[in-house]
Formats: sequence, C-alpha cells, structure tokens
Amino acid sequence: MSEENLYTFENPEYRKTFWHTSSHVMAQAVKRLWPEVQLAIGPAIDEGWYYDFDAPFTFTPDHLTQIEAEMKKIIKERIRIERSEKPRAEAIAYMEEKNEPYKVELIQDLPEDAVISFYTQGDFTDLCAGPHLDHTGRLRHNGFKLTRACGAYWRGDSSRKMLQRIYGIGFPTKDELEEYLKRQEEALKRDHNKLGRELEFFTTVECIGQGLPILLPKGARVIQKLQRWVEDEEQKRGYLLTKTPLMAKSDLYKISGHWDHYLDGMFVLGDPHDETKECFALRPMTCPFQYQVFLNRARSYRDLPMRLGETSTLFRNEDSGEMHGLIRVRQFTISEGHLILRPDQLEEEFKGCLELAKYCLDTVGMLENCTFRFSQWDPANPKNKYEGTKEQWETAQATMQQILDDLGVEYSIGIDEAAFYGPKLDIQYKNVFGKEDTIVTIQIDMLLAQKFGMEYTDADGQKKTPYIIHRTSLGCYERTLAYLIEKYAGALPLWMMPTQVRVLPITDRTHEYANELVKKLEAVGITAEADCRSEKLGYKIREAQMQKIPYMLVVGDRDMENGTVSVRTRKGDDLGAMTPDAFTAKCLMEIASKSKEV
Amino acid sequence: MSEENLYTFENPEYRKTFWHTSSHVMAQAVKRLWPEVQLAIGPAIDEGWYYDFDAPFTFTPDHLTQIEAEMKKIIKERIRIERSEKPRAEAIAYMEEKNEPYKVELIQDLPEDAVISFYTQGDFTDLCAGPHLDHTGRLRHNGFKLTRACGAYWRGDSSRKMLQRIYGIGFPTKDELEEYLKRQEEALKRDHNKLGRELEFFTTVECIGQGLPILLPKGARVIQKLQRWVEDEEQKRGYLLTKTPLMAKSDLYKISGHWDHYLDGMFVLGDPHDETKECFALRPMTCPFQYQVFLNRARSYRDLPMRLGETSTLFRNEDSGEMHGLIRVRQFTISEGHLILRPDQLEEEFKGCLELAKYCLDTVGMLENCTFRFSQWDPANPKNKYEGTKEQWETAQATMQQILDDLGVEYSIGIDEAAFYGPKLDIQYKNVFGKEDTIVTIQIDMLLAQKFGMEYTDADGQKKTPYIIHRTSLGCYERTLAYLIEKYAGALPLWMMPTQVRVLPITDRTHEYANELVKKLEAVGITAEADCRSEKLGYKIREAQMQKIPYMLVVGDRDMENGTVSVRTRKGDDLGAMTPDAFTAKCLMEIASKSKEV
Repeated sequence: MSEENLYTFENPEYRKTFWHTSSHVMAQAVKRLWPEVQLAIGPAIDEGWYYDFDAPFTFTPDHLTQIEAEMKKIIKERIRIERSEKPRAEAIAYMEEKNEPYKVELIQDLPEDAVISFYTQGDFTDLCAGPHLDHTGRLRHNGFKLTRACGAYWRGDSSRKMLQRIYGIGFPTKDELEEYLKRQEEALKRDHNKLGRELEFFTTVECIGQGLPILLPKGARVIQKLQRWVEDEEQKRGYLLTKTPLMAKSDLYKISGHWDHYLDGMFVLGDPHDETKECFALRPMTCPFQYQVFLNRARSYRDLPMRLGETSTLFRNEDSGEMHGLIRVRQFTISEGHLILRPDQLEEEFKGCLELAKYCLDTVGMLENCTFRFSQWDPANPKNKYEGTKEQWETAQATMQQILDDLGVEYSIGIDEAAFYGPKLDIQYKNVFGKEDTIVTIQIDMLLAQKFGMEYTDADGQKKTPYIIHRTSLGCYERTLAYLIEKYAGALPLWMMPTQVRVLPITDRTHEYANELVKKLEAVGITAEADCRSEKLGYKIREAQMQKIPYMLVVGDRDMENGTVSVRTRKGDDLGAMTPDAFTAKCLMEIASKSKEV
Repeated sequence: MSEENLYTFENPEYRKTFWHTSSHVMAQAVKRLWPEVQLAIGPAIDEGWYYDFDAPFTFTPDHLTQIEAEMKKIIKERIRIERSEKPRAEAIAYMEEKNEPYKVELIQDLPEDAVISFYTQGDFTDLCAGPHLDHTGRLRHNGFKLTRACGAYWRGDSSRKMLQRIYGIGFPTKDELEEYLKRQEEALKRDHNKLGRELEFFTTVECIGQGLPILLPKGARVIQKLQRWVEDEEQKRGYLLTKTPLMAKSDLYKISGHWDHYLDGMFVLGDPHDETKECFALRPMTCPFQYQVFLNRARSYRDLPMRLGETSTLFRNEDSGEMHGLIRVRQFTISEGHLILRPDQLEEEFKGCLELAKYCLDTVGMLENCTFRFSQWDPANPKNKYEGTKEQWETAQATMQQILDDLGVEYSIGIDEAAFYGPKLDIQYKNVFGKEDTIVTIQIDMLLAQKFGMEYTDADGQKKTPYIIHRTSLGCYERTLAYLIEKYAGALPLWMMPTQVRVLPITDRTHEYANELVKKLEAVGITAEADCRSEKLGYKIREAQMQKIPYMLVVGDRDMENGTVSVRTRKGDDLGAMTPDAFTAKCLMEIASKSKEV
C-alpha cells in the first residue's frame, strides 16, 4: 500500500475504520430515536458492520428505514469525532449513569491496567478502542444500507440474553453501494444453501441435527466423482492410499497435542477428565493416524519421501448456531495427506503439493478466484497456542519463505494464522458473495515427527527425524460442492454432473428409440435417462433446463428415420441434428478433458 | 436329522453333549491332580469346550499334559454319570463344604424356583443343568486334546478375579482329531490377524485402541477397489448413491427404535439420560439416515422402487476384549442399502438383492463357502426385543418364506435371529477355521416406514406406506478383506491386488528397459513396479513371491534385445518369454474378467 493510498477505501485498515464509524453513526441514530435502547457492541466485520442492541421492541424493516434516515442526517451534520480517556471507576460510573449495563460489564472485564477510551460525536459517546474517522461527514449519506436485523446472544453465550443485531454495509459512493447490492442479489440466487436444496444436491433434517447434511443422490454422485478423480490423481503422483480409523483413545491426541490445543473442538465419547476409564474422541484431523502407517516398521532413507493420501472424514464439535448448509458443518470429508520426507526433499515435495492443489482447483474452475496466504505464528503472542521454540518457528518459516520465493508464489502474510505445529501456505478462495475462506492448505511441520518417535535410518547409518508436509489436494468435498453450485449456479461441468444427458422423445412412437439411445450412452459410461412421460416437449425441455441437465437429445419421428438426435444444451443452444455416434464422441471428449465450458 | 443319527457326532446336540461331558472329565482330572483348585464354569462351545479354574499356580503346557493323561484314565475307567437334584439351601451347603465359592455364587444367583441339578461321575460332582453322556467311556481316550490355557475374568467382568481357562477339543476317533488339528494348523498359517499384518494389509496400535484397525496402503487399496466395484455394480442395477451423516441427535434413534433396542451398542456423545441437552450418537446402522432421502419430498408410486445404496461407515461400542483383527471391530464400512417399494414389488426386488449378493460373493470367490439362513423372531420370547405385533411378524415371515420358496433358496431356520424390525435372509460364511458368521443380510421390514411417516401416493390417489428391504451387497469390507486374506493365504486375485506386476531386471543394463515396461503397464491401468535394487535375482523372486505379487517379469539382456519379458507367477510357474504386449493383453483380460485363478 503506497503512502498516497492510505486514506482510501482500498486500504483494508481505512475500510475497517470507515465501517466502524458507520456502526457508531447507526448507534447514535438509534439512541436519538429511542433513548431507552441499550447498547452492547458494534464492530466492523469482513463486509460492513453490525451493532447489538437491547431494545424493548423488535426491529422491523420500517424501523431500519427510520434509522437510515436519521443516519443520513448525522452524516450531513458532519459532526466531529473526538477521543477521550477516563479512569476505570469514572468510566463505570459514567456508563451506569447513562443506564448502559452492557458497557459497564465490558469495562469491568477489562484488565486492571487497561486504557479506557471513549469516542464522542455530538450527543453520542461510546466506549471504544477506536480508531475512527475524524467526522461523520466522511461517510456518504446515500452510500450505505442497513441490510437486516436478527437475534444474537450477548457475548455469543446462549445462556445469556438474546439481543438484536442490525447489520449495515457502506461505501464512499452511491454507485459502489448499488454495484455491491446487485452483486449480492445475483449471488443470493446462486446461494448453495437455497439452490443446492432446490436441485436436490443435499438437505438437512431437524432430527439428525444442524451441520450434518444429508447428501442426496445428486450431491453424493458429484462427491463420488470428485473423490475418485483426486484419489486417482494422487495415485498417479506416487501417493499411497490409507484408510485409518475415525476415532482414537485420548492417548493418541495427548501425544499429538490435540488434547491440549483442540479439545473444545472435538467430539468426545466418554468423560475427558476421568483418567480411570478408556475415553475415545472422533478425529478432528488425520495427521496422528497416518503417522502410524509410517511407524508400522523401521524406515530407511530409501523409503522417503513417503506420500500418504486418504479420503478422510473429520469431525468438529461446533455450536449449532454456527452451522450453514454445506459450508459450516460438523462432519466433512477431505483429501488429507501427509508427506514424510528427508529435509533435502522438502522443497521438491512442497512444489509437488502446490502443483497438485493448483491442478485440482484449476480443473474444477476455482483457481481463478484463489489467492495465497503465508500463515505464520504470532511471535508476540504465543500464549501456549503454538508448540515448539522460537528458533524452530523461525527456521520453519524461513524455510517456507525461501521455498515460496523460489517458486515465485505471490502471497500475503497472515500473522497468528499458523497451525499449532507449523507455518502454512493457505489457498484462499473468494466465493460469489465476496467472502474469503481457506480452501486448501500446505503446511510444513518440523515438530510432530519427534513427538511420535518417527525416525529413519539415513544413508550414513544415523537415525534421523523426518520433516512432514500436511496438505490437501482440494478443499473439503462438502464445501467444494457448495462453492461449485454457487460458481456454476447449479450447472456443474458435464464431467461431474450426476445426469449428463436426458433423451426427450416427442411421441410415444420414439420411446423405444429413446431407450436404446440411453443404453448406448450408458454402455460407454455416460449417465443418461429418458423422459418418456406424456408431457409436452416444451415442458420437458424447461424441466431439464431447470435441473441443469447438460444435454437434451430431442428425438422425433424424423430423427428416428434418419438415425439422428437433435441436440440442445441447458443454456438453450440448439446444436441441430447429429448421429448418436457423433454426439457420443463429442460428449466423451468433453468428459475426458473435464471441460468447464459445458 | 433322522432317528438313527441322533446319537452320532453329526448331530449338533449330541456333539455339544459330548464336549460338555469332556469338560467335566477335564475338571475331574484337575481336581484329582490338585484338589485345592476351585471350579468356576465349563461349557461346550462352537468347537470343543473350556473350563475356568481358580488355581494357586499358572497352568503350563506340562500341566496340560498331566491333565490329558489323567483324563485318559477317567475315560478308560468308563465311570457312570448320574444326575441328581438338591434343594437350594442343601445345594449351597454342599458346595460350601467342598470349598467351591464360585459354585456357591452361581447357585445363589439362580431364580428362587430353579431346579438345582448336579452330575456325578465317581469322585467328582458338578453343579450342572446337563445333559450329559451316560458314562465317561463314551469319549475317546486318544480322540481329544487340550489346546491352550489363558486368563479369563470370572463372569467376564474385568472388575472381578482373573481365572484360568483351559480349552479342549475332542472327537469320537483319533483320525478325526488329527484331521481337525491339521486343518487348524493350516488355517493358522492363513490367519488374517497374523498374515494380514505380516503382508502389511493392516495394523492396530495401542494408542488408537482395539477394534480400530489402520488399513495400510495395501489393505486400503484392496478395499478401494472392492468399494468402487460394488458402487458401480449397484449403479448399473439402478441404485441411487447417498452419503449420509455418521451421527445424529438421539431424536432420530428414538423414532427408529435404536435408542430402545440398541443403546448399549452405540457410541454416545454426551449424556444419553440428560434430556435437557443435545445428545448425539454415532450410527450403528444406516437405515434411519437413508430414509431421510426418501422423505426429502412427496413421492408417488412412479418413484418406486427407490433403491438407495451407500458405502457406509458404522460404529459399534463393544468391549475391548471382544476385538479381533479385522473381524471384530468398533468401526467398519459396508455397502448398505435400502429399497423402498410398493408391496407388489417385494418379490422382484428381493430377488434382485439376492442375485446381487450372490454375484458379489461369487466374484470374490466366497459363495462356495456360504449357506442361507432364514432368521425369524422368537414368538415364545418377544421380551420387548422385537417391534410390531404377532400378526405383523407372521405376515412378514410368511411373505419371506413364500419368496424364498419361489426362488428355490435352500435355507436353515434361525429362531430369535431376526432384526428387531423384521425377518432376515442371512448369508452365512464358513471361514477357514470352520467358524460361521453372517456376511450378507437381506431383510424385509414392514414396520419402520410407518414410524418415519414414509408414504407414497398410489395410482389410485391414496396415500400408502411402502415396504422396505434392508440389504448389503457384500459383507463389511474390513471383514471381507480378512476372509479373502485367509481364503487365498494372502495371494488375492489379480484384479484386487495392490501391486499386480513386479519387473525384475537381472542387471543394471536392463534398468531402463524395466522402468519403461512399468510405465507401459501403468499407462493401461495395471499397477506395476520395478525392483532395481542390486540384489541377486533369486532373492528378488523369493521376496516378490512372499509378498504374493501375482506376476514377475524377469528381464535380462536377451529379453531387452528381443523385446520380450520372461513371465513368472507367484505360485512358482515359469510362463516363459513373451512380448510385453502379449503379457499386457493377458493381464488385462484376467483383470477385466476378475479371474480368481491368478
């Protein structure tokens, strides 16, 4: 970020401040309209801001319109925003006087020696660490929108009071806002949590639970195809397949460090604190399980690199409230793998992992929306969050940086984003809503092998500890399916579609011909079906298009006589008549090349 | 069993009595040798008998020889065996006087109104329900053997005293015993729990736990091949693939009845008795999960039969002591499926399930060791073990019998062997040790659809409840792998072998040629590798044979010049020189036909 761009919306820090100030303006508007409403917290978030309120009524869309109008006034008033500090007791007394019990609690929970700062804009003062813009006129009166109101527990704790959260989004110009809203509206139509259910890729049911999606036949088939493809691709690249248990005794997690660093995120079978009984836990990661494959017998330098891959199911014990469609789930499947290697093999193998991930992401069409992040530990804030010494981390990170530079990878740096055992290269995917998530990760681990007593005999006869790369080839399959549904608006590339061709006979006379075509296509591995219902052709075509079936073969009397099929695509293109063989060849070519165009 | 065969060893009831009497003779011998040894229990088992003793020393092989010698004497003495009864108090006093505290406890635990019977043979009297043979001379002095001694908890309870169990086996003739022992010795060499570990198909580790095998790359590949084959075979037969969650809230299991009938066998996450909190459990079966796929939208008679298949992972919470290799496990994967159908489709679909299972078992070579069992409920002993009414069971069983008779299936009947929701056709597999287990099951269920509110609109516009068939195509994959390792002594058929061909260059000069051959084979999907170590050819061949690699291609200078390969098999056959193309074609043919001969 160059100097001159510091105070523009392109600078993430400025943007965050802009949104944070917007949240104060929103709170000020609410307090002007309904002084009895109490304030909780109001941060900037990835996109926009929210503020949690305790109000004696429920915010309706009408209320939001009123708040927006008041905010416009406050922006036009160009009120100066000023910072001040108060000693602890005074700060508490001040908020007690203003009848803001949530603010009082927040101050009470601050460390004894904390600086307690406030930001004041005219008649409104908020407890806040800042920073903020210098006056409310920096916002744009027609550049923002309050998008929705919903419930949110105070401090995210379901045992405490349910407050009301209002979300907003804002930009420096009206055009940017409109463009954003249009993009969101477009994205909403692609929302996998809506479209994926409508197209019967997946569902969820109350009696099974949130975050435990049921993959319906269509979704299950897509994931089957993706998994087989990744497994075969890994096999070609010298990976050895494993199939390790989905649970283990606590003993294993104690060695790996998951018991210390990850217990809250794990599903435990039994009492984790009762040392007298056998206690199992579902696995949150595959690492310590796959290491047992290496440990199965003595290894020499000739056995390395050992590339282990597994289509692995993992479990994360998260709150029901956090669950979302196929993206935030409690159980998921991922192409996990670990490469156990000699130090001199690290760069070459890291490169192989990166190539494989890029190949996989590119093949499914997701690479173009990916960026790279070099996720490091936080040297200032280890807090027992990371294993190993400062020296070990510096070595690992320096090695990784050298490799990334050698490979010419362009990356951003994420501080405090590392795994507890080492630095990561995270491949970040930006979805259709503009939200970024880690989809693939490649990690360098110089710590865990020693914990598990993994060693190999080197060429010099010495016992040595290997390095480990933790990696995935593609993101978790459930989430990948969600992203693909959104990216392609349900019209997935031909090769991964559960049904690739639907034959539509125009009359009863062509039913037999249609069924023969299906058999021919199925015989060469193309998934086809015939729609022999007595419905109008137009209806059948519309239905097939709604279901995103890539190809429709319309067959009428003339087609039967001529031995042809009339080919239509789900996009609505009419490719005209061709022989079944010509169509089959075209289809097979597109499947084999994993074409994204169809 | 005809009248005249009643008192022969072929009659299972007689055989059991024969072995039970053997156990008394063994106990008598022990008491004669060491009167201070106390007696626990001594039943006949599937093969032979055991007796649990509390002895002040540990039984060694020498002790077993002494006991055998004493038993021979007792047999030759032809001692009469007589039954008697005693009132409760007298029975207790009798065993207290004989200093047999375990017997006292057994009597005390009998119901108040129980008949307490004893069997006496000369100087030995045991508490026993019988029946027994009429004198000890009915056994054969050189027809039995004590096979081993090991620890066993009193009443199988690990909090109680560890006793010593001695196992024995016996037959009416010396020849039969010798034949049995030879067969056992042969089987032991094939024991998957030994051979499967040696050949690196799987392992287990203490820190993960018993019953949670780690499938090493070889085992994982075999299972991958089997799974893909079964999934594809099901796809061809009109099955829809699903992928449903491995856990659910207790709510689901309460509807299905698993909470009432199966809670002890389930892994529960949380407190099953605390109704105020969300409680999840790992699934022991796939049924209630797959029903959700049917329930996803309204269904009509046209949607039926709906054939749902899933490569499903299941969990059973069993004692650590019960675990055994790949056969008794806590987590396993199985080709589970449910067919939801109209009553008029039941027979046709049942037939399809049976054909598929027979096809699968035949293809892997296991069908020849299978028999069929029609598993029914126990009308005399429902004890809340079965859902539904007597009428429903009679209907379901009559329907199933009709179908089995129509299909000409030869079956035995197993009373009290049904699932809690319906009768089953169990395909029983007899392994190399002669032990029988259920490997595949096809069940008719007329109860559960109603519980889940599953219905379809029939042609007449009426809402109706479908029938369900629960079925598997092949046994659970882990167990199938175990049986295959034992059946083929590790030399699995070519198509499922993880490595199919190994190229053995005789000299350094042929390394390049060997590597090219590997590439050519891999290019057409044959898994091959080259052994380019500088070892003697004989050593390399022996190693490949030990690892059961189906084909070895020996390549020397002459082969390279002539463009040939010298083909050897793992059985030791030398097939002579052929062109790489001829060998590849032979190999591909054998793989495609899933030949069992290679």
